[in-house]
Amino acid sequence: MSRIAYVNGRYVPHRDAGVHVEDRGYQFSDGVYEVYEVRGGRLIDERRHAVRLERSLNELRIRPPMSPAALGVIVREVVRRNHVVDGMAYLQVTRGVAPRDHAFPTSVVAPSLVVTARAMAGGPRQKRAQEGVSVITVPDNRWERVDIKTVSLLPNVLAKQQAREAGAYEAWFVDDEGFVTEGTSSNAWIVTGEGTLVTRFADRGILRGITRSVLIDATAGKRLKVEERSFTVAEAVAAREAFVTSATTIVTPVVRIDGKPVGDGKPGPVTRRMREAFYGHAEVAPILSSPVAPVRKTGSRRKIGT
Amino acid sequence: MSRIAYVNGRYVPHRDAGVHVEDRGYQFSDGVYEVYEVRGGRLIDERRHAVRLERSLNELRIRPPMSPAALGVIVREVVRRNHVVDGMAYLQVTRGVAPRDHAFPTSVVAPSLVVTARAMAGGPRQKRAQEGVSVITVPDNRWERVDIKTVSLLPNVLAKQQAREAGAYEAWFVDDEGFVTEGTSSNAWIVTGEGTLVTRFADRGILRGITRSVLIDATAGKRLKVEERSFTVAEAVAAREAFVTSATTIVTPVVRIDGKPVGDGKPGPVTRRMREAFYGHAEVAPILSSPVAPVRKTGSRRKIGT
Repeated sequence: MSRIAYVNGRYVPHRDAGVHVEDRGYQFSDGVYEVYEVRGGRLIDERRHAVRLERSLNELRIRPPMSPAALGVIVREVVRRNHVVDGMAYLQVTRGVAPRDHAFPTSVVAPSLVVTARAMAGGPRQKRAQEGVSVITVPDNRWERVDIKTVSLLPNVLAKQQAREAGAYEAWFVDDEGFVTEGTSSNAWIVTGEGTLVTRFADRGILRGITRSVLIDATAGKRLKVEERSFTVAEAVAAREAFVTSATTIVTPVVRIDGKPVGDGKPGPVTRRMREAFYGHAEVAPILSSPVAPVRKTGSRRKIGT
Repeated sequence: MSRIAYVNGRYVPHRDAGVHVEDRGYQFSDGVYEVYEVRGGRLIDERRHAVRLERSLNELRIRPPMSPAALGVIVREVVRRNHVVDGMAYLQVTRGVAPRDHAFPTSVVAPSLVVTARAMAGGPRQKRAQEGVSVITVPDNRWERVDIKTVSLLPNVLAKQQAREAGAYEAWFVDDEGFVTEGTSSNAWIVTGEGTLVTRFADRGILRGITRSVLIDATAGKRLKVEERSFTVAEAVAAREAFVTSATTIVTPVVRIDGKPVGDGKPGPVTRRMREAFYGHAEVAPILSSPVAPVRKTGSRRKIGT
């Protein structure tokens, strides 16, 4: 089966999915993105992703390519055309194509929109959930506005690569005062000796993860206390449990930090409970077998919504 | 005349110059670039750009797509095919195309190479050189490794836009201690009351501009003193002269900083002298009328050097 991508108004074979070399996403990382989990043929938390996308676009003053509803149709259509049951969808919006100049284009330029989807094998994720993962810590050397979900991800790339080379799954960024900010593609959590869940407050120092928000909601009806505050690497190592959250991994236990075991070095019960609690609070939407709104046929050169 | 771009082994019409949506330059800003001045049909400082490009690639561990000599052939060929006499050439190398994953691809992936060129009207640049420009100052909120010439340029985009909206030509980034680091696409200089040229030392806080380096060389035989050190915004406002340097603007006088006049608010003699001195020390290479090495014909799908 050949993969299909959506690019600026057209559904095209994945191998032919191209953007112009002067797309500002390519020359300036002038764009934003979202990653959605697809699980059991359903799109997870579409509404929350749409709200965050709107905020990202607003912060960068990139014009939304179309309404959230129309975007949702396309994301679900790409998932459907790729027959993804368990996997992920990826959506990227950039400021569009214009002759290279740092400042925003002075003429009206249509934003670029790319959507892809792919199946993901459950095995490796399941194994990580059962056995836990290692993380390393690295200085947070990123720019100031990591609260915006931009494709300006080079520091994250370098830190993730450093983790892999250290035999770890993730790298946690640590700020100048020694506090953990977040992972390269996940939020960081600990469970204290008293059983309190701790994750950094969502100021400009971290990205407000969807899974993070859902988990905070999920604790409301339970006898679990959540504190949104900073914690140091030392506090994390001394914690009873630790875990990371992201759209594609949901809740993954962290059993080693910089080579030191967390708790007894095994995934703990609170982490497991949070993983199970997630889907009770996530919003799920079925992928329809046919699109709910007219979608231009493959091959059209016209852009939708611009 | 239709423009031509070089993309991964092919010379293609500019309108068709595309890269894949999973090019890591597009999804992660995982790439580097160079901008060359073309003046009087000659490529300026090709060797210095090649050296800096090699360093950028090395810092990010991106494999060079080909030798510096072969790259030079392509840059000159793109300039030639576009009949650029006065203008610029742009070269971008990314880590290549791979399924989206923050860490480096685990399989061998060919780096992507894009080269474009275009003519630039001399009028606006000449006017800026004669009348001087305004700059604003903004907090330096970029990541730590701005010494690498990467396409992770979103903070620069936002600051340049802020400058434009303030009616200024450039924004100078200012570090936490109040010292100017550099402009969004230029290095910052002042001329003190004693006639000394001052520009920030090239540590990790700034990009080591080619024009900056050439100017430092240019002062060697003259009775001009250069100090590579930090200066504050207050020192810049109180300076006798100020200017910015970049490959496409060479030396441009700064006559206002945050609305306050520098010196008498007019371009000064030292700035003018440095502008004139530049071409005496830059390295110029003619754009040959035919390539000096075999270049695959337009339409080939094979990549050169990979």
